[in-house]
Amino acid sequence: MTDSSGWTLDPDRAFSAIPAERELARQIYAASRALPIISMHGHVDAGLLLRNQPFGDPAELLVVPDHYVVRLLVSQGATPAQLGVTRRDGGPSETDPRQIWRRFCAGWKYLRGTPSRYWLEHELAEVFGLSGPPSTATADRLYDELSAVLAQPGYLPRALFERFGIEILATTDDAASPLSDHAALAQEGWGERVIPTFRPDRYTRLERPGWKAGLADLEAAADVAVDSLDGFLEALRRRRMAFAAAGARASDHGHRSALAAPLERAEAERLFAAGLAGQINPAQAEAFAGHLLFEMARMSLEDGLVMQLHPGVLRDYDPAAHATYGPDAGFDIPLAAEFTRSLRPLLEAFGRHPGFRLILFTVDEDTYSRELAPLAGVFPAVRLGAPWWFLDTPGGMLRFRESVTDSAGFYNTAGFVDDTRAFASIPARHDLARRIDARHLARLVAEGYLNLDEAQETAVDLAYHLPRQAYARLDRV
Amino acid sequence: MTDSSGWTLDPDRAFSAIPAERELARQIYAASRALPIISMHGHVDAGLLLRNQPFGDPAELLVVPDHYVVRLLVSQGATPAQLGVTRRDGGPSETDPRQIWRRFCAGWKYLRGTPSRYWLEHELAEVFGLSGPPSTATADRLYDELSAVLAQPGYLPRALFERFGIEILATTDDAASPLSDHAALAQEGWGERVIPTFRPDRYTRLERPGWKAGLADLEAAADVAVDSLDGFLEALRRRRMAFAAAGARASDHGHRSALAAPLERAEAERLFAAGLAGQINPAQAEAFAGHLLFEMARMSLEDGLVMQLHPGVLRDYDPAAHATYGPDAGFDIPLAAEFTRSLRPLLEAFGRHPGFRLILFTVDEDTYSRELAPLAGVFPAVRLGAPWWFLDTPGGMLRFRESVTDSAGFYNTAGFVDDTRAFASIPARHDLARRIDARHLARLVAEGYLNLDEAQETAVDLAYHLPRQAYARLDRV
Amino acid sequence: MTDSSGWTLDPDRAFSAIPAERELARQIYAASRALPIISMHGHVDAGLLLRNQPFGDPAELLVVPDHYVVRLLVSQGATPAQLGVTRRDGGPSETDPRQIWRRFCAGWKYLRGTPSRYWLEHELAEVFGLSGPPSTATADRLYDELSAVLAQPGYLPRALFERFGIEILATTDDAASPLSDHAALAQEGWGERVIPTFRPDRYTRLERPGWKAGLADLEAAADVAVDSLDGFLEALRRRRMAFAAAGARASDHGHRSALAAPLERAEAERLFAAGLAGQINPAQAEAFAGHLLFEMARMSLEDGLVMQLHPGVLRDYDPAAHATYGPDAGFDIPLAAEFTRSLRPLLEAFGRHPGFRLILFTVDEDTYSRELAPLAGVFPAVRLGAPWWFLDTPGGMLRFRESVTDSAGFYNTAGFVDDTRAFASIPARHDLARRIDARHLARLVAEGYLNLDEAQETAVDLAYHLPRQAYARLDRV
Repeated sequence: MTDSSGWTLDPDRAFSAIPAERELARQIYAASRALPIISMHGHVDAGLLLRNQPFGDPAELLVVPDHYVVRLLVSQGATPAQLGVTRRDGGPSETDPRQIWRRFCAGWKYLRGTPSRYWLEHELAEVFGLSGPPSTATADRLYDELSAVLAQPGYLPRALFERFGIEILATTDDAASPLSDHAALAQEGWGERVIPTFRPDRYTRLERPGWKAGLADLEAAADVAVDSLDGFLEALRRRRMAFAAAGARASDHGHRSALAAPLERAEAERLFAAGLAGQINPAQAEAFAGHLLFEMARMSLEDGLVMQLHPGVLRDYDPAAHATYGPDAGFDIPLAAEFTRSLRPLLEAFGRHPGFRLILFTVDEDTYSRELAPLAGVFPAVRLGAPWWFLDTPGGMLRFRESVTDSAGFYNTAGFVDDTRAFASIPARHDLARRIDARHLARLVAEGYLNLDEAQETAVDLAYHLPRQAYARLDRV
Repeated sequence: MTDSSGWTLDPDRAFSAIPAERELARQIYAASRALPIISMHGHVDAGLLLRNQPFGDPAELLVVPDHYVVRLLVSQGATPAQLGVTRRDGGPSETDPRQIWRRFCAGWKYLRGTPSRYWLEHELAEVFGLSGPPSTATADRLYDELSAVLAQPGYLPRALFERFGIEILATTDDAASPLSDHAALAQEGWGERVIPTFRPDRYTRLERPGWKAGLADLEAAADVAVDSLDGFLEALRRRRMAFAAAGARASDHGHRSALAAPLERAEAERLFAAGLAGQINPAQAEAFAGHLLFEMARMSLEDGLVMQLHPGVLRDYDPAAHATYGPDAGFDIPLAAEFTRSLRPLLEAFGRHPGFRLILFTVDEDTYSRELAPLAGVFPAVRLGAPWWFLDTPGGMLRFRESVTDSAGFYNTAGFVDDTRAFASIPARHDLARRIDARHLARLVAEGYLNLDEAQETAVDLAYHLPRQAYARLDRV
Repeated sequence: MTDSSGWTLDPDRAFSAIPAERELARQIYAASRALPIISMHGHVDAGLLLRNQPFGDPAELLVVPDHYVVRLLVSQGATPAQLGVTRRDGGPSETDPRQIWRRFCAGWKYLRGTPSRYWLEHELAEVFGLSGPPSTATADRLYDELSAVLAQPGYLPRALFERFGIEILATTDDAASPLSDHAALAQEGWGERVIPTFRPDRYTRLERPGWKAGLADLEAAADVAVDSLDGFLEALRRRRMAFAAAGARASDHGHRSALAAPLERAEAERLFAAGLAGQINPAQAEAFAGHLLFEMARMSLEDGLVMQLHPGVLRDYDPAAHATYGPDAGFDIPLAAEFTRSLRPLLEAFGRHPGFRLILFTVDEDTYSRELAPLAGVFPAVRLGAPWWFLDTPGGMLRFRESVTDSAGFYNTAGFVDDTRAFASIPARHDLARRIDARHLARLVAEGYLNLDEAQETAVDLAYHLPRQAYARLDRV
């Protein structure tokens, strides 16, 4: 925990300051802290591990691609371009990584109280061993320290993968991806450790500009004409099978709502044709997406892929920002979510089917005790994913456990899922989740709800066994 | 608290582990813990106390009828039939109570962190004096221990009633119930202690299959033709009067939404006729239910029954599960709730009327600080019921007090209402509520918001005086 | 903190009882407690300071005008008239202030756990130095004590203003107000310390009875005909300019929803004409209000006024109470809020504009982590106001910080905004906010998220620098 540089993080961080609870949390965390990392849903590029090249400069590693950090600095007046985010419109962006790094260090205080602050401290102090926290005064020194570290062989992606104790890492991949990086990794014996996840979102939103053009990729990848609903579904089915053959355990669906309701076949065909003709309205597109989600569940029974659903975000909220910087630039904003009515047709059909599993995520905490925990607490197919995105924070994880456990217990949750694009943040995120779970369990012990040995067993299950089980491929029917 | 068997629960359970708060909680709890139990809303069968026969086997007592337990075990892969729940379709269900009990014990860990775990521990250790917690290893031993206990005279229903310190127990009864068990109990001098509650739900949802057939029961009970809206309302009025005469203090209404808005008379008649003709759609049925709730409030002014409203649950969510196992099988799921607009017509009419009282429950915590506390904090007719169903948990009760007290104080809540079907769980539920209230009040004292004597007085009010007052029959106008 | 009378408040009140956190909270609070008060949004009458006359009797000062207190006593059976609230219908109200005061003291327990209890204790003990808390037994003694204090020169409004350490106080003023009290105060050198706020609500709700009649005031004040949309907008523009010239920093908008979407010009003109003709329905009125909010944002770019939005309350919920007692009588009830979709057009247009600032308030806590923090965490124009109205409580402020900081950090919030009508409660409210922020920051330090010096700096920023910055006039474009 300490290192020669002298920057040491609090070994009890994230634990309650109540003495009895802190002591219990230490004992519970001791049971889970060194377990291998099961990372079943993330956005790391498989090519990073295939190429195994040194990470770039500090800004490229920690600032430019991290939309959590970028958005907070933007909220305080920086432009994304000043933080090095590439403009699509040909306008200038900052290209000097040291300038970007300085701006980041100068804005360090804006991150106080946020999870980004926590993750970055863990990375800077524990992964990279820097000598102290960012500030205007330390910016250049830290830049140099970090640059030097990144050049060392021990900091190559595969070396970090081993050092982080990652047992398995799932990437997220476009449905049309040839998965060639995964194939090459498999050739090198990494096929069990780096697996793809089937993500069809680019093909499911008929109202999006470019949807029709994108179909060409799907058509080429699946080698089947997608000019009809049947062809389209067949293409998706083939790609799912290809993903499953490449080791995928799950599909991932980023819908605007949780609607999962089948349409009459003729209506679905009509909407698909309207989409091809560029004549579909948002309500029709939403209905089609709900139909497709239902169809995907049906395909899960065939190929055994676990279904992940991430609904409720209005993407690319600021059209001008989207035009300038593209997607994933920090301008996605959540909406109120609804699961009870939206999922009913799907759960009627598959909610008690032993060959189906659905892992639900939300960015609307209201649904925890009202809808998600009651659903997961009765339907054997349903597991609850970890707090997602804006909620993947110390407080967010604690509120999740406190709200969800009452109705769903611990064993209807999928354990921790990190959902990160930032490879170097993976251990920080899993370590924080283990600390928060230890803290929550410590309270339950201190208040007489559980015994210590039960709490320790539960902590191990949450960190290791539950994500493995939740994402285990299901038997085909 | 201890017993010869050696299984002792933590005497400070549910209290905060902050030393100063724990010590205060002990002092506050000491003021309320031994008070008589006021159980104003439950689902115990009056016949249980009339017959006063020994409880059946351990599975029949603690597993099969407890939908909290059944649903959690179902969520982990058991079928209700394997847990002894009778199938309506003639299919087989487990009939060996020892097998059911073993399955329950093997799944004990799935209950970790849930209120069922807490209540069951209290029952097993403190009510029945078993020697230790359930597990695969202890299942048979505990089965035998519990079977032996249940055969003792001290564990007959009336003996437990006395031992539990129950002052008054309200049951929930169909509007057409002849209340013969209550009458027989009254003959035996128990009329003040076991009272009925008027529940008209079977007659208020015109869209339900079987609604019209069910009317025959109402007609027979009320001895008035229900072939018109006037007759229907008159039948309800008569049954309310009969309940009031039998000692009822309250009516109870389980609507899908909180809508309480009168229709024009002609429109209401039209909808009733449409219901009789089997030609009503869900929106019309909902409007009629809202009309009826308004009419019920008006009748409250005549007969003095306190109105309880439990809205916001989608019942029988899984049609196949409902077809196989019937209602109350664990497949009810909450919906987002709305009170502000929905209740406005009713509160305009009766919200400041001294002859009306409305006790509101919810399964949507979002409404606590946003709608319920602001409403209860100004309308003298409104009291807030205890956290209900999925929210009747240590964390749920604490969140309720923390969210509601700001706007409504303590004295606009109805104190604790247990809402249980499980007779043997009544002391566990009231004891937990008293502990949580003591804990909450202890924090307020420790943080300088209240004095200890105020906190103790408030704890006594919440446990005893407030439920008595909230459910006191109101003077007829 | 102590005074000769012997009634002393706990110096550690509102801090956590966890020893380590309490000690840290003391150190953090020590950094912020004595800072000047920045009161950027309140409802104190400027004339109070201009006239600088003694406050009236205890009831007139602390009971009759305080709708928090009135509503809680009403909820327990008093009528507003019994509490001295004037009836509009000519019916009798209690006129003896000692009787009103006695009733208030007798109901003191109904305030337990509410913020009113906390604020009043602070006022009675620390501002007015009374000898003990209210009760039936102490009512007359306290009445006499307080009456005597109010007659002293040290308790005149300006003396209290100095003693409270108020650096700047913003009032809220009708758009047609001549601002003559402010002008007179400026003449006396108080122009920098007491500033107006532009509030156009009386003119923006076309569906309201009396809207058209009210326009005459606007017309007279702006000296421009308001018989067309253009004239109406020009009148508002002129009044904004007049407010800005009188020192205003902000406008304030109390809409039913957060909708801010421009209409086609012809449609807006059509709705305005329909309003003049008394032929507008609620949906049209809502659309027009959304149009107007957008126009107000556009005007902000011209005059530099910061925009405050307070949406989501159904005012005058009980028509009969409104008819008898008028507005602000405690009968306003919140509604579910939505910001993401509602604000999108406005944020598309102005959310990244350096000449615009929008401070958002809510009475719906669900929106904290779901919508408000994600919006403030990326749009530079957006700041989050303090927890408002029913949420301006110890628990409410803590939940706000816990939910909002994750995505927005501390520096996208506006610090504390008191929103009070009760002049004597201003120090209590700011002190409580500083205590709660110190408490929250203490937890972050104790749990290893922040260093103590960062926490102290943040506490100072929240209490002083952030409200100054958030309400700084923006440069005109």
